[in-house]
Amino acid sequence: MNEAEFGNLVKRVAIVGGTHGNELTGAYLIQKFEQFPDLVQRSSFETITLLANPKAFAAGRRYIDRDLNRCFLQRDLLDATLTSYEDQQAKQIYQQLGASHDTQADVLIDLHSSTANMGLTLIPANSQPFNLRLAAYLGAVCPDVKVYQWAWSAAQSPVLRSICDWGCAIEVGAIAQGVLDAALFQQTERLIQAVLDYVEAYSSGSPLPLPVPETVTIYQCTEMVDYPRTAEGKLLAMVHPHLQFRDYQPIAPGDPLFLTFEGETIAYTGDSVTYPVFINEAAYYEKGIAMCLTQPQQIHIAS
Amino acid sequence: MNEAEFGNLVKRVAIVGGTHGNELTGAYLIQKFEQFPDLVQRSSFETITLLANPKAFAAGRRYIDRDLNRCFLQRDLLDATLTSYEDQQAKQIYQQLGASHDTQADVLIDLHSSTANMGLTLIPANSQPFNLRLAAYLGAVCPDVKVYQWAWSAAQSPVLRSICDWGCAIEVGAIAQGVLDAALFQQTERLIQAVLDYVEAYSSGSPLPLPVPETVTIYQCTEMVDYPRTAEGKLLAMVHPHLQFRDYQPIAPGDPLFLTFEGETIAYTGDSVTYPVFINEAAYYEKGIAMCLTQPQQIHIAS
Repeated sequence: MNEAEFGNLVKRVAIVGGTHGNELTGAYLIQKFEQFPDLVQRSSFETITLLANPKAFAAGRRYIDRDLNRCFLQRDLLDATLTSYEDQQAKQIYQQLGASHDTQADVLIDLHSSTANMGLTLIPANSQPFNLRLAAYLGAVCPDVKVYQWAWSAAQSPVLRSICDWGCAIEVGAIAQGVLDAALFQQTERLIQAVLDYVEAYSSGSPLPLPVPETVTIYQCTEMVDYPRTAEGKLLAMVHPHLQFRDYQPIAPGDPLFLTFEGETIAYTGDSVTYPVFINEAAYYEKGIAMCLTQPQQIHIAS
Repeated sequence: MNEAEFGNLVKRVAIVGGTHGNELTGAYLIQKFEQFPDLVQRSSFETITLLANPKAFAAGRRYIDRDLNRCFLQRDLLDATLTSYEDQQAKQIYQQLGASHDTQADVLIDLHSSTANMGLTLIPANSQPFNLRLAAYLGAVCPDVKVYQWAWSAAQSPVLRSICDWGCAIEVGAIAQGVLDAALFQQTERLIQAVLDYVEAYSSGSPLPLPVPETVTIYQCTEMVDYPRTAEGKLLAMVHPHLQFRDYQPIAPGDPLFLTFEGETIAYTGDSVTYPVFINEAAYYEKGIAMCLTQPQQIHIAS
């Protein structure tokens, strides 16, 4: 890697969990790292850990007042009239970790889980070369890793990871809310170690255990599909059994998307093959998202 | 069946869902039956439907103040000082459906879901012959049905179904909280139809589509096992990956139960083979239950 190409060295890495209080994988990994800080320390940078929404974690809920992971729009962080618990948390986290603060994080990893069958999904903070190379490297370390990108631009992004140019969210599943899945806990921990290895290599010039592949496939969100609903917003259908837990698998026009409560199938009416993800995520019922349609894009990594 | 053996005919069947607001299968089945009441009507009795915890359903939470399905101890129903939202709901439901009220239900079905892999589990209200025959019949209709019984006696039972001598809870899973699983929705609906067929045959003397088997296997809870915890109650371990989703499968002394956050296996130290159920149920973390150990018992059905 070429340091000049990417800017300054990394001084501080932040590992964040429990941004959603009922996503236990990240919250308990943070507790583990707080108990055994040596696990996440490296010689060339400092690692800090943060349980982002302790009140929601204690209550076993995604959030107390509003979704913390939608509180990081720049205009909201600057809006003094926003005073909900999560708005206050967001401002405090931004003060601690955001750019141009004394304690800013140069790399940030935010740990999430999903009731959808996301496997081990990486969501880079943006498309900067540092992040794309990281995604490609994690794919080499763990071939099951998928890379997903939302449709919003970095400037419009309301999510916690957007306060830092370098880093990603790690989204693992399928895990029910309020549950620890030991296998996915361990796989997530291994991914975090691989992220730290990558940063260490970048920062100190040490070699990586594996070479970074020349390309990475990113599943780019092209459309968010809501459940069929009445005019008042009441659900009319469920995710079709043929689609449940089949995240990242292709569907073609005419394939089943939904099943109404009366047993009628509703088919996909798009023009071409698509790859749905976040299928039947519990937290997205209220957001009007039954699934996100994606297109895989192969990206060449600058060497 | 011998009517004299079982007492009076059935006048009213109650189907209850949404007792826990984030268990969507039952709540949406109730909404469907309210929209299409003919689906659950039979000629020989009246069927009523009830969304038991509408506030918790609207909030997407198990409960608002306390677990509604633990509010039905007789002494709590009579305790005027208990005024939480769920205590009020429990008293109102008891007034409507409980024994010796004008609108009492003679048979009650309470619909639940679990993050544990409970498949289609029937939990009879008690061991009265009506309920055991019903359980045996449902096993004939659907060979995947399992029958489970808690350790508490009928008189000590705090659950909603205990207000009615005849009936059961239906517990389906694995389903994440806040999620509809279309396949399990349809299977639950078929089970409800089979319950109504059974009651109709009992009440009107009409023949059942299938004969009632002579025996039924009941998984009797013998012990509830909590997660390993610190003295302050903090979790020290997760359900072991080898055990996750393996409800109703036998484990022997020495088999893995838990995995600590540091990766150490904790084995089952009991004396003999047991069959754990409710493994890693999200709602039971706060109740101190990681799983329920059971012994299968074959019960002969009085003909």
